[in-house]
Amino acid sequence: MRVLRSAGRMAVVARRWHQQGQRVGVVPTMGALHEGHLSLIRYAAAHNDVVIVTIFVNPLQFGPHEDFARYPRRLPRDLQLARRAGADLVFAPSVQELYPRGFDTFVEIGALAERWEGRARPGHFRGVATIVTILFQLTRPTNAYVGQKDYQQARIIQQLVRDLHLPLRVHIRPTVREADGLAMSSRNIYLTAVQRRQAASIPRALTQARAHIRTGERRASLVLRHMRRLLGAAVPGARIDYLAIVHAKTLVPQSRLRGRVAILVAVRMGRTRLIDNLLVDVP
Amino acid sequence: MRVLRSAGRMAVVARRWHQQGQRVGVVPTMGALHEGHLSLIRYAAAHNDVVIVTIFVNPLQFGPHEDFARYPRRLPRDLQLARRAGADLVFAPSVQELYPRGFDTFVEIGALAERWEGRARPGHFRGVATIVTILFQLTRPTNAYVGQKDYQQARIIQQLVRDLHLPLRVHIRPTVREADGLAMSSRNIYLTAVQRRQAASIPRALTQARAHIRTGERRASLVLRHMRRLLGAAVPGARIDYLAIVHAKTLVPQSRLRGRVAILVAVRMGRTRLIDNLLVDVP
Repeated sequence: MRVLRSAGRMAVVARRWHQQGQRVGVVPTMGALHEGHLSLIRYAAAHNDVVIVTIFVNPLQFGPHEDFARYPRRLPRDLQLARRAGADLVFAPSVQELYPRGFDTFVEIGALAERWEGRARPGHFRGVATIVTILFQLTRPTNAYVGQKDYQQARIIQQLVRDLHLPLRVHIRPTVREADGLAMSSRNIYLTAVQRRQAASIPRALTQARAHIRTGERRASLVLRHMRRLLGAAVPGARIDYLAIVHAKTLVPQSRLRGRVAILVAVRMGRTRLIDNLLVDVP
Repeated sequence: MRVLRSAGRMAVVARRWHQQGQRVGVVPTMGALHEGHLSLIRYAAAHNDVVIVTIFVNPLQFGPHEDFARYPRRLPRDLQLARRAGADLVFAPSVQELYPRGFDTFVEIGALAERWEGRARPGHFRGVATIVTILFQLTRPTNAYVGQKDYQQARIIQQLVRDLHLPLRVHIRPTVREADGLAMSSRNIYLTAVQRRQAASIPRALTQARAHIRTGERRASLVLRHMRRLLGAAVPGARIDYLAIVHAKTLVPQSRLRGRVAILVAVRMGRTRLIDNLLVDVP
């Protein structure tokens, strides 16, 4: 497995692969790899000729009071894990390499980026859209793989790929969960033991909401009220950032449920912010 | 010469050329081709294996009170001119083709886009940066050619290509001028006969300013005062939008001239707005 730090070298290798007609799968990550990432890498390896994993903690997508500085960085371990999962190349550039002095170009998404995480984290999706555009230029994927856990982010990447006519397909792959249902996230390590136990109520609330819908409830307000009660009881100190049932494509809230919907939740536990979601096809 | 309307077909052709290792030259235009465009096409044909001319009057770069509706459209004539100048393919998509329903992604440039044309035409450079990014994705150029007449636009395209790591080089080619010095522009046809004669004072003011600098003047304020007087006398009804001597890379105004500078001018004559510039290497 090759490891590249230089954007120029990455572009040269990607160009060669591209001209050889290789199907290139890319898994963009911020490192601190967990089973969620590894399942994306394994899936990419099964469906492409070569797999590139990018590891870059992107300062542009962190707010001034967020966890950029303390975000976990464990490159040697990540390289081992990526290699074992089937990566052919890891691209791990420095901040200086991707954002040299004078960098001043940004990719912005409209309506899809304004709600939910976009409201809670101003500038976040502009950072995501910008870095993903850059990484796709440098790596020239045939396919890119992203986790459903960050569902709004995944939709935004699909939107920008469509709108800017980037020549690749973006695949949203299912969230990988711990035994108790908690969605895997590099931020789970911030949780205290007590918070970690309480956090399992988030996926529990989601699956109960799904069951609630599947057994016939079509009023979003009632499903959400039930979820809010459950979360409030399970996590006394929790602050629910948002809780919503939305159209799966547009992320616009629905009051009367129909078609494919996403149940979205964001909860703050102490200094840590957890997000999760489930997709439900309303019968 | 092929003519394509479909973004999907354009992408397929560009992909094939790219994989064959062809050097692809792209000349992005809004049509109404004149000798300025044709000189870019001829130059591109001399330095690439294939040449694509894009013709697209981009609604996103026009303000609500600008001339989008009346901007000259003359496709049959443009196709003939492009073919004779050496184009292998003209890509002339509809608005619907590049901005389908739900389109909501934008490329934004920072400081470089805030001054001069950016101030006079809010949103203009966002429209330019977005369409150019899309056109470069669809056509995959090795080289792109733009005219110096729209100097700020040319610098913005260079900045976004650098920042987003688009795999191509942007070449700024000299402005082509009429016999009396007026920079060729598709908007020159808006001028009345009187305005057309007066407009020649714009390049005259620029060349006098350059001579002024070359003979030793280093104070921008004095050079500009001289230019303003000349323009005021030659074009009684003219409104000078801006007149500036700036750093050729950053477009920041200079008071004491040194290095490479650009003299920028924008003038309104009736409903028509003309821009021009000269680059000067201060000895």
